[in-house]
Amino acid sequence: MPNRLTMPIGEAMFSQRAIRRLKPDPIKEEDIRLMIEAAQKAPNGGNNQPGRFFVMNDPAIISEFGKLYHEAWWAKRKDEGFNSAEDFPKEHKTHFYAMKLADEIKDAPLIILACAIKAGVDNSVFPPVQNLLLAARALGIGSTLTTLHATVMERVHKLTGIPEDVKIYCCIPMGYPRGNFGPTKRLPSREITFFNQWGTAPPWS
Amino acid sequence: MPNRLTMPIGEAMFSQRAIRRLKPDPIKEEDIRLMIEAAQKAPNGGNNQPGRFFVMNDPAIISEFGKLYHEAWWAKRKDEGFNSAEDFPKEHKTHFYAMKLADEIKDAPLIILACAIKAGVDNSVFPPVQNLLLAARALGIGSTLTTLHATVMERVHKLTGIPEDVKIYCCIPMGYPRGNFGPTKRLPSREITFFNQWGTAPPWS
Repeated sequence: MPNRLTMPIGEAMFSQRAIRRLKPDPIKEEDIRLMIEAAQKAPNGGNNQPGRFFVMNDPAIISEFGKLYHEAWWAKRKDEGFNSAEDFPKEHKTHFYAMKLADEIKDAPLIILACAIKAGVDNSVFPPVQNLLLAARALGIGSTLTTLHATVMERVHKLTGIPEDVKIYCCIPMGYPRGNFGPTKRLPSREITFFNQWGTAPPWS
Repeated sequence: MPNRLTMPIGEAMFSQRAIRRLKPDPIKEEDIRLMIEAAQKAPNGGNNQPGRFFVMNDPAIISEFGKLYHEAWWAKRKDEGFNSAEDFPKEHKTHFYAMKLADEIKDAPLIILACAIKAGVDNSVFPPVQNLLLAARALGIGSTLTTLHATVMERVHKLTGIPEDVKIYCCIPMGYPRGNFGPTKRLPSREITFFNQWGTAPPWS
């Protein structure tokens, strides 16, 4: 099963960027399976495996879900004090890209909701999610890790049939990229790393 | 920088198991740096990069920290109703392995605490943590994702100098493995995956 994930791990990690502009081409079911089975291999507390994957690849449900995602995305922006695109700081381009995704997600070929059978198990959900995203990258499939908003959750549960006691942790639209994978900008590691005492820079700084 | 992470990503993911028995051999600083820089490449919300890595490779602090880890581990077991090893269900071997780690962690060559400058950003901490663990695997370094316990947190902050408002999300002892990497047992993916409606099995089931 793992043998199609042949990309060197460094290449996958160092070229994993948020891909928000997606082609409509469908993702093969065998690729969805491989991504999920890679995800399952990540650590989880006590091997209790609380994680569940809710896959949407039916255009009808994606179209309905897309409306809720759009509403959720703007609800998050309003929480931040932004009422329209004119309010976004011009230098922070991510808002504009993410706004576009909120418009276009209704046409994504694949959306996966990472869920768990209980709340408070983020440390058993997000390592698998990262495996899912890296496996996608290795297969040439783009993805973005996004969240929803309380204002739409009841309707998301109703639309998907996800029981109320199953928590939805994040929403991952996926598809072949329009545009390219590539490097991301991060702080120098010396600024976020401490050795043996807080405030002590690493030896490579 | 990424070029030493040449292992195929599928091999790393499908052979990443918890490695709790560690050799005392030190981990090279260039490997620590590479693991952290790989971790930083994982997604985080809005690229705000709240994550911080607190690295312990000084035997003196690891020895002190090891006592707190041991106490935290048993505090967690007591929360679960286990007061000694005799209370553990015989068939659940992980308890015995993890108990051994709690005894031996004081001699680990490397412990990394994954932190963030605020609480509630698990979805910006655990994707990087998973990159850290996978990069370790690709370098032949074993690791386990563990947590601490409220009873020791004040003393951990005091020992490490980590400010009270910096949250410690998890504790990752690392070292070259005594024993082998290898496969993990997971549920069949068809049991944890739903397609388009909750309860609808995937096409591969």
